[in-house]
Amino acid sequence: MGHRAAIVGAGHTRFGALPQTPRELLRQAIDGAVASVDRGFDRRRIGAAYLATLGFGGWQIGNASALVAEEAGTPGVPTLRVENACASGGFALHEAVRAVESGNVELALVVGLEKMTDVSSARRRYWLGVSGETEWERQAGLTFAGVYGLIAARYLARYGVDRTALAEVAVKNHANGALNPNAHFQKPVSREAALGAPRVADPLGLYDCCPVSDGAAALLIAAPEAARPYTDSPVYVEGLGAASDALAVQERPEPTRFEATRAAGDRAFRSAGLERSAISFAELHDCFTIAELLALEDLGFADRGAAGPMTLGGATRRDGAFPVNPDGGLKAKGHPIGATGVAQAYEVFLQLRGAAGARQLPRAERALTHNVGGAGATAAVTIFSAG
Amino acid sequence: MGHRAAIVGAGHTRFGALPQTPRELLRQAIDGAVASVDRGFDRRRIGAAYLATLGFGGWQIGNASALVAEEAGTPGVPTLRVENACASGGFALHEAVRAVESGNVELALVVGLEKMTDVSSARRRYWLGVSGETEWERQAGLTFAGVYGLIAARYLARYGVDRTALAEVAVKNHANGALNPNAHFQKPVSREAALGAPRVADPLGLYDCCPVSDGAAALLIAAPEAARPYTDSPVYVEGLGAASDALAVQERPEPTRFEATRAAGDRAFRSAGLERSAISFAELHDCFTIAELLALEDLGFADRGAAGPMTLGGATRRDGAFPVNPDGGLKAKGHPIGATGVAQAYEVFLQLRGAAGARQLPRAERALTHNVGGAGATAAVTIFSAG
Repeated sequence: MGHRAAIVGAGHTRFGALPQTPRELLRQAIDGAVASVDRGFDRRRIGAAYLATLGFGGWQIGNASALVAEEAGTPGVPTLRVENACASGGFALHEAVRAVESGNVELALVVGLEKMTDVSSARRRYWLGVSGETEWERQAGLTFAGVYGLIAARYLARYGVDRTALAEVAVKNHANGALNPNAHFQKPVSREAALGAPRVADPLGLYDCCPVSDGAAALLIAAPEAARPYTDSPVYVEGLGAASDALAVQERPEPTRFEATRAAGDRAFRSAGLERSAISFAELHDCFTIAELLALEDLGFADRGAAGPMTLGGATRRDGAFPVNPDGGLKAKGHPIGATGVAQAYEVFLQLRGAAGARQLPRAERALTHNVGGAGATAAVTIFSAG
Repeated sequence: MGHRAAIVGAGHTRFGALPQTPRELLRQAIDGAVASVDRGFDRRRIGAAYLATLGFGGWQIGNASALVAEEAGTPGVPTLRVENACASGGFALHEAVRAVESGNVELALVVGLEKMTDVSSARRRYWLGVSGETEWERQAGLTFAGVYGLIAARYLARYGVDRTALAEVAVKNHANGALNPNAHFQKPVSREAALGAPRVADPLGLYDCCPVSDGAAALLIAAPEAARPYTDSPVYVEGLGAASDALAVQERPEPTRFEATRAAGDRAFRSAGLERSAISFAELHDCFTIAELLALEDLGFADRGAAGPMTLGGATRRDGAFPVNPDGGLKAKGHPIGATGVAQAYEVFLQLRGAAGARQLPRAERALTHNVGGAGATAAVTIFSAG
């Protein structure tokens, strides 16, 4: 099948507890994307802009997308905010691809942003909490760590895996984050430290949970045939797949499988016309370490129950057969909600162009990104190839 | 140019202060859209669903789009929430059109929803307020009525128009709403009552302001060539145009013109390949009466300063040369934020099929909808034709 779209530029702020305002983060990510375009960039060619954000720092909540046009220096450009909780960025990318596919947008801008650390912790809990299911789970006091803790406990019991598999995800992703100058955490973590850390929601400990981060990331998307004026090395979007699931985890037949991820993955592979074996590496949504194991299985990269042994065997390390989260993942790079799905594609953009520096993978021809909303109620999967 | 998409079904709840929950409103609007499809409907053909909402009743704020799949009876379908404040519905429609244009979605569902009356007034102010510009205007205590009041005062002074022109918009739209069984207000209002009502934000009085409403509306969108299996009378989408503007009104050169509306209108007409004169009637975003006058001018249906005399002369009445808001508009039909842009297209669907009952217009061949976010920072314009 033909390419569906091309990424011709990508930008990424530092992730972490940052001093910048939301506007400054937007601008910095967009400027980074613009600066990464090899040649011929003209802001006037941007025909649509998408903003992925959950709460915009609890500040400009309604109509915030208009600020993207201001900060991008593209007055008047149509802007739209999209929100699917933690999957907002992945879905925004899909809308941008469709905008160029529809033939009436030459260049689409996607920006993901979250500013979480300068709001009160009460408000932050509110913004995070509202993405959980409200009618039952929030009423019962279940936080995201709580939901994933229950899922993890069931997974470990069901498949006879122990916490070392979870710890191995943390150790690997922290090792990768240590090589990423944009990562929230840039320090390795030992297996002993991960296993010995205070419990947050049993069996999940401190190092099983991603941090609360600020940050932004941006992409410039063109139609495949329109990419060459901007660069000789575009990164192509080959396939899109998205899906939803019951919002309440309790309504799903089996909580250790995310049906939305499975369906989104199947659709993305069908849309790309590719097999699992064609993928060199993946960026998976590891908001908690257990989530990386679930994703490996739901996407068909590991059999049920086999993601733990696969991880313990080193296959998902940078030097393994199937590297996962070479940028550190949500776990170490950080998880500024709306930015995450966009930032995953940023990493793919670097890796597939051989521009990932110290963390460059030896083989990076095709990649997959996987972005999940809440505890699996929405999921977006995207498949990319090197130009 | 060819049609861009086809509406094959549309649904609309009552607007007003309603007892239903957000889930119930979603379901009722979707069921209405499904019931309106003439034949051959199969939920499994829905390939994407869009939810337009600002606050989902302040209840399920994050990841709410997954609930659309639940209430539509389409488990697993990709869902996405879009939010551009009061323009969310119009932008959601555009995304759905692009989804079918991209060729990989057969049928797209668009649902707009707001539930505003069962939250505390403080929380409602919060949800409305957050769509105003935060850095300056909200800090100064400026509400939406305040912003539009200032715009109205300037408009009246600049063009030598008096408040009777504003009152005429209210009288007309209330007269139309009286014929719409879904309208929030179904009672006529006299010119004297409109002019004599208490002032809200001078020169705007009570009847110059739209109400705070609950409600939902839904559309089913197909590719043009895929519409006939569902109906012999699809309503075609001929053109889309959208734009943004500075979020803060104070940063714009002239507050009595909404540059986003002007640009969105120009793009929509260019995209449709049609002249203004081809449009039989319009659904314009009359959140305040002054906004209908601005829209007539910004969209090129009246010269600058001429919308007042045009309105006073009766041209925009149901029996006038260019009917505006035959369903009662935001003013009388109500304005459940996320639902509004979708509900405008619902009215077009009825009118262009000759199914608008007591308020059916004698000439309804092509129509335009105009949906504005906040005080003009985002705008979506759509042009439709009868099948």
